[in-house]
Amino acid sequence: MKRLTRMLGIEHPIVQAPLGGEPAGAELVAAVSNAGGIGILGAAYMAPARIAEVIAQIRSLTDKPFGVNLFCPTRWQRDEARIARFVERLALYHAELGLPPPQLPARFEEDFEAQFEVVLQAEVPVFSFVFGDLGRERIAALQSEGAKVWGTATHVREAIHLAALGVDAIVAQGAEAGGHRASFLGERDDGLVGTLALVPQVVDAVPVPVIAAGGIADARGVRAVQALGASGAAAGTGFLLADECPISPAYRAALLAARDQDNGLTRAFSGRWARGLMNRFSREMAELELPEFPIPNALTRPLRQAAAKAGRAEFLSLWAGQAAALAEPAPAADIVRRLAEGWPTSAS
Amino acid sequence: MKRLTRMLGIEHPIVQAPLGGEPAGAELVAAVSNAGGIGILGAAYMAPARIAEVIAQIRSLTDKPFGVNLFCPTRWQRDEARIARFVERLALYHAELGLPPPQLPARFEEDFEAQFEVVLQAEVPVFSFVFGDLGRERIAALQSEGAKVWGTATHVREAIHLAALGVDAIVAQGAEAGGHRASFLGERDDGLVGTLALVPQVVDAVPVPVIAAGGIADARGVRAVQALGASGAAAGTGFLLADECPISPAYRAALLAARDQDNGLTRAFSGRWARGLMNRFSREMAELELPEFPIPNALTRPLRQAAAKAGRAEFLSLWAGQAAALAEPAPAADIVRRLAEGWPTSAS
Repeated sequence: MKRLTRMLGIEHPIVQAPLGGEPAGAELVAAVSNAGGIGILGAAYMAPARIAEVIAQIRSLTDKPFGVNLFCPTRWQRDEARIARFVERLALYHAELGLPPPQLPARFEEDFEAQFEVVLQAEVPVFSFVFGDLGRERIAALQSEGAKVWGTATHVREAIHLAALGVDAIVAQGAEAGGHRASFLGERDDGLVGTLALVPQVVDAVPVPVIAAGGIADARGVRAVQALGASGAAAGTGFLLADECPISPAYRAALLAARDQDNGLTRAFSGRWARGLMNRFSREMAELELPEFPIPNALTRPLRQAAAKAGRAEFLSLWAGQAAALAEPAPAADIVRRLAEGWPTSAS
Repeated sequence: MKRLTRMLGIEHPIVQAPLGGEPAGAELVAAVSNAGGIGILGAAYMAPARIAEVIAQIRSLTDKPFGVNLFCPTRWQRDEARIARFVERLALYHAELGLPPPQLPARFEEDFEAQFEVVLQAEVPVFSFVFGDLGRERIAALQSEGAKVWGTATHVREAIHLAALGVDAIVAQGAEAGGHRASFLGERDDGLVGTLALVPQVVDAVPVPVIAAGGIADARGVRAVQALGASGAAAGTGFLLADECPISPAYRAALLAARDQDNGLTRAFSGRWARGLMNRFSREMAELELPEFPIPNALTRPLRQAAAKAGRAEFLSLWAGQAAALAEPAPAADIVRRLAEGWPTSAS
């Protein structure tokens, strides 16, 4: 159970799970690491040059270990008819917010090769990834630069697959987790195993440390996943209300009002299944045949950015896990301390 | 945390969750209670006279506390067109198994009033219920006969509702749980909160003891839900492989082969959402517009019974939770002992 803190040289095995988009920034990551946990930057949506910039910012704020998370590239097809229908629907919301009609962007996603190269060159302490196969060569390259590499699994078969690739630790993402499902093998439902059931099965299946994620937002959750055999506990939603987290007031207000049952899975914002607070956009788009990820993600960006400014939560991707109601506004260091109470030093 | 064992006068706060249909019987319930836990009879599908008989059997096998579970009646409509289409599809499977064509039964469900009266008269130590509102009067009547009454909640709002009705304890059924979702307020997705997220939120919301259910199949799960603040831990799937559990060899073989990800939700067997191992029947019926619960439950019974005899797992309702792969064949007393290791006496 000591392996994660020893592997990283950190005080508490408390991980701030990667938060992409609105909440992504250097301050939160550095504050978590400074408090003795480890912050992970959600960099998937950042241009390569921006990633380099934010990593430099983090390093100016902390000399403690931190991590960077990227999305592995996935194969996708461009279905023009679906794109056209999606744009047509989006145009109605644009009009409602006084935005110009949606435009097809020059590209739908960042260049993964270039993102990866930046992170590799930056010699980050931890590199974590979702959506699949990073490939043995990239994993080995990171490790030879001193990085610990974490893969993300949503069921046992994915965990075994990642362990065979040589990752240093596995994040076991239970169904409770907010944000994108990290699944990469099988159908959506395969990757909806609850944290309580998932963690012991993954622990039994792989030789590397397992970091539990999903549904953990206070010391009780941390204590529980320690009992399940995890080597660390990750909280994402639990850090969204941190003082250092740059989310919009509308997102913050929605989180403060969240109850356990307000939560659901939607593909509407990005084309991939993700858990969040359901709202008008996710409900109204539920029946539409969507273009594949990452097309909707790029197409909804202007709407989401305008909605954040206008305080219109009904158009925001309100990613949140099922323990959102347990999250409390506080400085990140206090949140780390509160979570770490669930992992007494005597047992870590 | 001592409240459940003290309330019931039992040694371990380990509950054998109600198992209806194939696994229902006196032997398992009595064996669990004799081992210091508490067995709950899944009596929902039993005729009133049969319930009286099985309760008498349990009493002949143990003098320890045990429980009986019923389904609260739900409102449902009889849609003849849907019934006709369902019967038409069923007929194909009947033909495949050499059964006569499906017949509409005289009734689709047992008479709840009569079932309830039997249980009330039997003065059972614990009465547990799912699917909603038992009503204050019935709860009070049971309590005045000495029973402790447990309601089942799948999210916080349901828990608060049950507590206000005066139940003595609340079973918090996480999304990992096998068998029927107990939800009674809101839509299906509202009631799919994972155990790790659900239990602390329910504990915070109600003044009565909370029994955690869903994803618990070994001592690690028990230890985890204790850390979350539960007063007891319920295992259902964890007892399906008990020597005393009368399931068919085909069901047993499917459970022994189960992996975490084989699991899904289906309405195909009963008309209500339930979690189990997916098979040909659940997959082939997935797109059909089903009659409401309990109509399909009554209509699929002959098929399920014949399939159990013929060893055809593809037509069985293979209810199982997401921790099914952690269950091991053993005498029920050993399973209780193994689970109870997660709840050390010092802390109970």
